[in-house]
Amino acid sequence: MSDQALVLAASAIGAGLAMIAGIGAGIGQGFAAGKGAEAVGKQPDAQGLIVRTMLLGAAVAETTGIYGLVVALILLFANPLLGLLG
Amino acid sequence: MSDQALVLAASAIGAGLAMIAGIGAGIGQGFAAGKGAEAVGKQPDAQGLIVRTMLLGAAVAETTGIYGLVVALILLFANPLLGLLG
Amino acid sequence: MSDQALVLAASAIGAGLAMIAGIGAGIGQGFAAGKGAEAVGKQPDAQGLIVRTMLLGAAVAETTGIYGLVVALILLFANPLLGLLG
Amino acid sequence: MSDQALVLAASAIGAGLAMIAGIGAGIGQGFAAGKGAEAVGKQPDAQGLIVRTMLLGAAVAETTGIYGLVVALILLFANPLLGLLG
Amino acid sequence: MSDQALVLAASAIGAGLAMIAGIGAGIGQGFAAGKGAEAVGKQPDAQGLIVRTMLLGAAVAETTGIYGLVVALILLFANPLLGLLG
Repeated sequence: MSDQALVLAASAIGAGLAMIAGIGAGIGQGFAAGKGAEAVGKQPDAQGLIVRTMLLGAAVAETTGIYGLVVALILLFANPLLGLLG
Repeated sequence: MSDQALVLAASAIGAGLAMIAGIGAGIGQGFAAGKGAEAVGKQPDAQGLIVRTMLLGAAVAETTGIYGLVVALILLFANPLLGLLG
Repeated sequence: MSDQALVLAASAIGAGLAMIAGIGAGIGQGFAAGKGAEAVGKQPDAQGLIVRTMLLGAAVAETTGIYGLVVALILLFANPLLGLLG
Repeated sequence: MSDQALVLAASAIGAGLAMIAGIGAGIGQGFAAGKGAEAVGKQPDAQGLIVRTMLLGAAVAETTGIYGLVVALILLFANPLLGLLG
Repeated sequence: MSDQALVLAASAIGAGLAMIAGIGAGIGQGFAAGKGAEAVGKQPDAQGLIVRTMLLGAAVAETTGIYGLVVALILLFANPLLGLLG
């Protein structure tokens, strides 16, 4: 087992773990979708404003899922740890 | 145990871990489905708008689950870590 | 311990991990079922529309669980990692 | 440690992990059961429709738990990974 | 297996684990987005104030997700543990 193989193997596991952050955005944005659908049912006239607010909030909720994706992609495609091997 | 085997084994585990992100979309979209059904029951006339808002929000909630799928498929079918082995 | 055995062993664990995504669909679709039953109780006349909206939303919530199943079946029956062993 | 033992041991762990998906159906269907009971209490006349909607939704929520069971049974009784050992 | 490789491998796994913190911000901000959409539907005139309050709260909820990102980036790009190796 070489040093490189060990670091790369751990990077594969780390990338998978980082994606778990996506759970949060999925739950939160789904809640926003449900409340948005409910609000549109009650005030169809305000649909434009409701959907815009829902999507603005959902975009904020997406950020931490994207952080996880970025860390996973760094581990997969631009692994900085390999360069630190002596 | 060769270097390649270690990296590939870890990639299999990483791919499985990445799929766990799907928990979020499942919970969130199910919440949206429930709230959508409830809203349709109260305002059947607004069904079109309600369902459209529900599906728009659900599509946003799907994204982080798809990120996880993409990372898993990269690990399985286009593993960039193997090429980094010395 | 051969290289193949290590990759196959990790694939078994990865397949199991991928199935954990199913937690989300179970919770979400159950919520939709509950809200659907509640709405049908209040507006029995709208049962058709309510159930259709519930099932449409539940189908969307099923997707990420199916992604996990697909990744698990790939790991079990069409393992691409074995072919990458040198 | 033989190759077969390693793959079989990991299959046991993978089968156990796959069953964790059952958490979702348990929570979701329990929620549906609770909301169904609540709705029947409020509108006893609509009991037939309420229970039918509840069971339909609960059946959908069962699916991802069954996927996990199928993957576990494959790992236990029809392990495709053993046959891939060289 | 060198000392450096072991520390770097563990750092990759640690970085992935740190990102899991993002689950919280995703759920919380999505809840805020849903309640914001609901409030805009009820008082469309107050949309500006509602959205500003929603975003202010979401910014606070983002912090722990960013803490996780910072720790992951430190582990990846400015690993202080390596320098402590004798």
